[in-house]
Amino acid sequence: MSDIINIGIIGLGCRGMTLLQNELLKMPDINVAGVSDNFTDRAEKGAELVRKAGGNPLCSTDYRDILEIEGIDAVFIATSWEDHVSIALECMEKGIFTAIEVGGAYSIEDCWALVDAYERTKTPCMLLENCCYGEIELLLLNMTRKGLLGEIVHCSGGYMHDLREEIACGKENRHYRLRNYIERNCENYPTHELGPICKIIGVNRGNRMLSLSSFSSKAAGLHQYMLDKKSEDEELVNTVFSQGDIVTTVITCERGETIVLTLDTTLPRPYSRGFTIKGTKGMYQEDGDYFFMDDNRVHRLFHFSQHKLWGNSGKYRRKYRHPLWRNTRTLNKKGHGGMDTLVIRAMCESIKKGIAPPIDVYDTAAWMAITALSEKSIAEGGRPVEIPDFTRGKYIDRQDINKGVYSLD
Amino acid sequence: MSDIINIGIIGLGCRGMTLLQNELLKMPDINVAGVSDNFTDRAEKGAELVRKAGGNPLCSTDYRDILEIEGIDAVFIATSWEDHVSIALECMEKGIFTAIEVGGAYSIEDCWALVDAYERTKTPCMLLENCCYGEIELLLLNMTRKGLLGEIVHCSGGYMHDLREEIACGKENRHYRLRNYIERNCENYPTHELGPICKIIGVNRGNRMLSLSSFSSKAAGLHQYMLDKKSEDEELVNTVFSQGDIVTTVITCERGETIVLTLDTTLPRPYSRGFTIKGTKGMYQEDGDYFFMDDNRVHRLFHFSQHKLWGNSGKYRRKYRHPLWRNTRTLNKKGHGGMDTLVIRAMCESIKKGIAPPIDVYDTAAWMAITALSEKSIAEGGRPVEIPDFTRGKYIDRQDINKGVYSLD
Repeated sequence: MSDIINIGIIGLGCRGMTLLQNELLKMPDINVAGVSDNFTDRAEKGAELVRKAGGNPLCSTDYRDILEIEGIDAVFIATSWEDHVSIALECMEKGIFTAIEVGGAYSIEDCWALVDAYERTKTPCMLLENCCYGEIELLLLNMTRKGLLGEIVHCSGGYMHDLREEIACGKENRHYRLRNYIERNCENYPTHELGPICKIIGVNRGNRMLSLSSFSSKAAGLHQYMLDKKSEDEELVNTVFSQGDIVTTVITCERGETIVLTLDTTLPRPYSRGFTIKGTKGMYQEDGDYFFMDDNRVHRLFHFSQHKLWGNSGKYRRKYRHPLWRNTRTLNKKGHGGMDTLVIRAMCESIKKGIAPPIDVYDTAAWMAITALSEKSIAEGGRPVEIPDFTRGKYIDRQDINKGVYSLD
Repeated sequence: MSDIINIGIIGLGCRGMTLLQNELLKMPDINVAGVSDNFTDRAEKGAELVRKAGGNPLCSTDYRDILEIEGIDAVFIATSWEDHVSIALECMEKGIFTAIEVGGAYSIEDCWALVDAYERTKTPCMLLENCCYGEIELLLLNMTRKGLLGEIVHCSGGYMHDLREEIACGKENRHYRLRNYIERNCENYPTHELGPICKIIGVNRGNRMLSLSSFSSKAAGLHQYMLDKKSEDEELVNTVFSQGDIVTTVITCERGETIVLTLDTTLPRPYSRGFTIKGTKGMYQEDGDYFFMDDNRVHRLFHFSQHKLWGNSGKYRRKYRHPLWRNTRTLNKKGHGGMDTLVIRAMCESIKKGIAPPIDVYDTAAWMAITALSEKSIAEGGRPVEIPDFTRGKYIDRQDINKGVYSLD
């Protein structure tokens, strides 16, 4: 292929527009060949941005037009969650490298459909899970690969982000979260931090997730918010939200690790992904941003003085920084600190070299599946639900893994 | 009764001895009338301490002798976990106020036996869950009662204490944890922070716990520790431990709250009880020791700067300090910062005034039951297990609750 990658963007809501503006249009080897959104104003705004940057994109409210662009190399899907899989399947059938924005699946069948489409067409499908490329997540990937935390036993994390305003403004902003929070109750955004955790413990690369159980608290946060902040909107004040405020999901893995995921998006709180990795020789915890290594001095000084450890990650960041975070001049800090640039460059490397993406269809299916499985488990009172092995046994001895610069293995 | 409380102590391991020395012998209204331990040296050491403080205790290796002391008002049981319930039942049958040190139950039948013994004999039984009287736990009790955090939706906490050395030295120290970690796999120490959480959300006082699911990671921490620190002890190096390093327990409550408990005692880490309370108007989290209240200024300044909140609890501690923590001169700081003094004074108030203890037999049974139920759930692959209503429906409209100075209601 030529050195220029022709990309089409489907979905120009907040996320699509941001990635277009902050990342894609700033990368000299990317040509944005087409933009699409159901809403004319969004599609046109996207096209205008591309034109201002010197491009000449096709602009359409029908995403199918994007798939017909001659020479299109990749499609980037940033639509509402509900449409990710069906559009991805069409892209894959047409042999176009398929990049899906973060979100969860609505059914297990959808996840299998992605896998089946890949195995039939060999078209790569990659979930753009930017948190896999976060500085601290890659630091921990690097440190755990070196064995510095010993054997990994337990990991936790989640999406802990107060989204009440975003959800409450869903009507005027035409945002899909509002309707999802009204209708569903599940771990609706599992892949931060499940993605980085799966990479660290080798899920789909020797290890696999066996089962999950999910539990939901009551839904009280959004109603209180509407009473306080949207009291003039009778419809919102009277809306009954199905989505519980806190969803806790526990995943057990074949090698004996447990993973605890927390979704915490409708109560007041500061942002955190609560990233925590615990091994037999040490631990890291994002809340407090500290390492605790198994060392006599550390035990003596800090065992009962956790607060003295807070923020001690600096020396580890300096010493064990992941190679991808060594030269940060090329990273756009606006893109979640730089990780958006990295996940897109990972996609580009895979396209250019024709190698498997570092987050492949099996990862995409397994991670997205958590949403559908959690909905089932919650509905059945927390019953443990089996997590399918989307590799059909290939996880035991994978040959087809990414060995590029952006590898997460 | 006279102003002096005659107390017998059964079990003089580390905990019994510490409470005797730091608390009981320093309280002028307590007479330690008897001390007992299976091991002669411990019983004699305890008796010697009492004599040095001016007492004249009965000293025996048979705990039954303690129950026969004339005029005994209360018995304090600090034996191995395995013997808490059977000794408590004997005390209750004899009408002696029964105080049980912290620990979990080995069976649900044991928990029912405590309740039945109480209902037949009307002898009070109180779990000495000192964390209910911790400064921060009482601060949150106070603040949540005032509604400052809004409706409470989710709580978490646990016993996160690196006990590897204590467990590894179990043979020479004759400590029951070693054998328990070899034989069992469960949430073996649930009542920190379950106790304080139950008080905050009114469990057994209008609310109740409905079901739990427990999940265990692999057991890797102790084996690694033995290899590193006990390599000369072939028996320990070859010991297979059943107890998983991290046990996660999720509890659902009738009013819609979820509770997540974490047992984390065999991996390197600093001490924490991870106490977290989340409501519709604010939250507190021990890891970071911060409050985040629902306020425009707080959102603007701290939403993406959690680290700036760390340690901000001081102003809340000053403003909303629980009355029991206003005058701390009488608290022995050596007793876990003062909470040991408070829980024992709560017991003394209940004995002297003849009122229900603030942690009553229903609390004791429900909290201790978590251990037995978690063992069952883990053994059944995380299946949700029903938590009995030990009040048999009385929780809906309790009349018999503590209204003393040390009330937790």
